[in-house]
Amino acid sequence: MKPTITAFAKSPDEGRGLARDMRVRWALEEAGQDYDVRLVPWEDFGKPAHRKLQPFGQIPTYEEGDLVLFESGAIVLHIADMHPGALLPDDPDARARAIMWMFAAVGTLEQPVVDMEVNEYFEADKPWGAERRPAVEQRLRRRLADLSTRLGDADWLDGDFSAGDLMMVEVLLRLEGQMIDEFPKLVAYCDRARERPAFKRAFAAQKAVFEQASKEA
Amino acid sequence: MKPTITAFAKSPDEGRGLARDMRVRWALEEAGQDYDVRLVPWEDFGKPAHRKLQPFGQIPTYEEGDLVLFESGAIVLHIADMHPGALLPDDPDARARAIMWMFAAVGTLEQPVVDMEVNEYFEADKPWGAERRPAVEQRLRRRLADLSTRLGDADWLDGDFSAGDLMMVEVLLRLEGQMIDEFPKLVAYCDRARERPAFKRAFAAQKAVFEQASKEA
Repeated sequence: MKPTITAFAKSPDEGRGLARDMRVRWALEEAGQDYDVRLVPWEDFGKPAHRKLQPFGQIPTYEEGDLVLFESGAIVLHIADMHPGALLPDDPDARARAIMWMFAAVGTLEQPVVDMEVNEYFEADKPWGAERRPAVEQRLRRRLADLSTRLGDADWLDGDFSAGDLMMVEVLLRLEGQMIDEFPKLVAYCDRARERPAFKRAFAAQKAVFEQASKEA
Repeated sequence: MKPTITAFAKSPDEGRGLARDMRVRWALEEAGQDYDVRLVPWEDFGKPAHRKLQPFGQIPTYEEGDLVLFESGAIVLHIADMHPGALLPDDPDARARAIMWMFAAVGTLEQPVVDMEVNEYFEADKPWGAERRPAVEQRLRRRLADLSTRLGDADWLDGDFSAGDLMMVEVLLRLEGQMIDEFPKLVAYCDRARERPAFKRAFAAQKAVFEQASKEA
């Protein structure tokens, strides 16, 4: 059954692929699964119809028959479960470790990334925004350093490319041209991921939405 | 095989059960799985032996034969997979939704909770700490309000108690006596969870570690 996902009608990142629908698109492309996209305009995020699918008023969501999911990590894991071999290894221990990296991405890494974004977008105009910045950066830098150490010279976090890498790369890409440049191994890791045909197809698809919206504006 | 988990030798919460080993202990108790605990003193968190198990220098970790896991969400999910029926429903759609709530707990809810803790513990002595507080609280309050609305008058987030509730309650308990009191449905939800025998056994076990350490100090 062809699933339907939701995405921003007008992505605030202007087609840079940083919204969380990109994770789901990428996973679907890795799995070779066709999908439909329903674009949600800003004014609909708080409406009951969308809240029924996503109680926190965010995107993406995932609908497939009677199943409705939100949380990009959970959606990616569901896609992996539906398509054995595409996003998770068959070996049970290796599978558990790949899922561990998915949780590390949305918990351990994304937390300080979001904190830095909050500082950047919502605290820049405060008199103390700049004063707070070094501590925010230091918390993020420590996590990136630890991640870089663990990755070392490997291509992927644990054996072959997995949903764990997909989620981690998607978090790291939000730091492009910023702090991640201090960690060449992580930059190379992201670059490797972006060379994957599935990534390219997903990226082009989300960019096309932005370009279409720009034309219509 | 009996797994070994790690926990703080001296928990900074003084036995209140807020450290993340509690999530794993609770899941193991729900599954009826016996386990060993290795206590890690502060000074060992940065050492290579611990970093090999946990690249970010945190607890808990989980060792079971050749398998080493970190990230409490991933460990709880692994325990659920090893003990069918204990922490996740058998129905595939219901299972996916329970996992969705696990991701919602560590991503969507824990992010603003950690932000509030950072403000409380590390920014209280800054001249701007109090000024920053309302925005931090507002971000968290919005998430709690959305969660409370979704929970409504149900006992658990989706059908029977699941690993999704376990993770969510563990995040919410960090707000005890604080903002969560504005949301009676969430307080009652946490209270229901704490009445579970498995929670009580896990709580007593982590508390005993603190009491033993206090006696020895």
